[in-house]
Amino acid sequence: MRMGDKKVYDISMTIEPSMPVYKNREELRPEISVISDFKKNQVYQSSISMNLHTGTHIDAPLHMIEGGESADQLSLEQLYKHCKVLDLSGVDDGITDNDLKKTGLKIEEDDFILLKTRNSFRDNPGEDFIFLKSSGADYFLERGISGVGIDSLGIERAQPGHPTHRSLLSKRVVLLEGLRLKGIEEGEYQLVLLPLKIKGVEALPARAFLLSI
Amino acid sequence: MRMGDKKVYDISMTIEPSMPVYKNREELRPEISVISDFKKNQVYQSSISMNLHTGTHIDAPLHMIEGGESADQLSLEQLYKHCKVLDLSGVDDGITDNDLKKTGLKIEEDDFILLKTRNSFRDNPGEDFIFLKSSGADYFLERGISGVGIDSLGIERAQPGHPTHRSLLSKRVVLLEGLRLKGIEEGEYQLVLLPLKIKGVEALPARAFLLSI
Repeated sequence: MRMGDKKVYDISMTIEPSMPVYKNREELRPEISVISDFKKNQVYQSSISMNLHTGTHIDAPLHMIEGGESADQLSLEQLYKHCKVLDLSGVDDGITDNDLKKTGLKIEEDDFILLKTRNSFRDNPGEDFIFLKSSGADYFLERGISGVGIDSLGIERAQPGHPTHRSLLSKRVVLLEGLRLKGIEEGEYQLVLLPLKIKGVEALPARAFLLSI
Repeated sequence: MRMGDKKVYDISMTIEPSMPVYKNREELRPEISVISDFKKNQVYQSSISMNLHTGTHIDAPLHMIEGGESADQLSLEQLYKHCKVLDLSGVDDGITDNDLKKTGLKIEEDDFILLKTRNSFRDNPGEDFIFLKSSGADYFLERGISGVGIDSLGIERAQPGHPTHRSLLSKRVVLLEGLRLKGIEEGEYQLVLLPLKIKGVEALPARAFLLSI
């Protein structure tokens, strides 16, 4: 897709009942109900019931930190900014500090980083998705990044105490989960990330696009 | 709020149980449920159940036209574009073609028009909200606009057969409802409008911002 002189990439997951859900847990599947259709009315109308961590979404401090900020307190400056996509599709299991040191792009203060992994090449990353290990999270914190996104429904798995989430969220780093980055090359882009505005919650479903810069 | 040299205006409604709902119908109130909290777990997690016409949202042809396009088929080019805010806060009841002829901004082909009315100055526009009359919709169609937004939860009320919705949606004009335009002056802006990506439905909850240009 193009918009003027820019290329546009939709990096959001499609929300539908058959979509991938975190660790394939059936209770996390969204439900869409048709309330009114053309058989009985002039109007077609539906509703949705979903976990706030469904599909592409952001996590705020409240997700893991008691008394932490809720997701509606994030500003457009934190969400609509230049970002760097790192190609980590060679990584097995989890991304470490050493993996991040080897990438082609320099990681700098206030960066919003998107991690492209093997998850983007699987229809459903399932239970053994590639994630960000705590040493990778610590490396990002040393550099002072402002946000990090990944192409799985969780930025973390199999780490007791959730150190990746906790360390990043305690420093108010925006976490963006559930990206689709298959066709996106390593490089710099404009991130256009707009979450719903639901009051007082720990996570917000969002739509995300990248624009070429 | 500022972003670089641009002013940023959030024109989205806050989604919460006590928010205004269409014609104050209690069954349209969103429900937020806490699934896990810090009393029992290390993780806070919640879910939402809501009508897809809750708060700021777009309507697609399928809402009123059998076999019409669903809302996920809209492209970023249709949603992320220059827009014109028209100040119609002097209008009582409904906006007619004559009201639109008197506004200070010229309405041109492919315009995305936002209608600022008295609704924006009321905490809850309730059942007698200002709306777009069918003569106003016809005027927009003659000019070939691509989208129209309004600061009520419906662009129409009290018109048998829903002629405003039907005529605009049959020409694939994007309808944007549930805006908050109180602090926005008449003029031109960049609209940043991102709906959720839910497959096959007639409407999508969205977040919308204006940027100064």
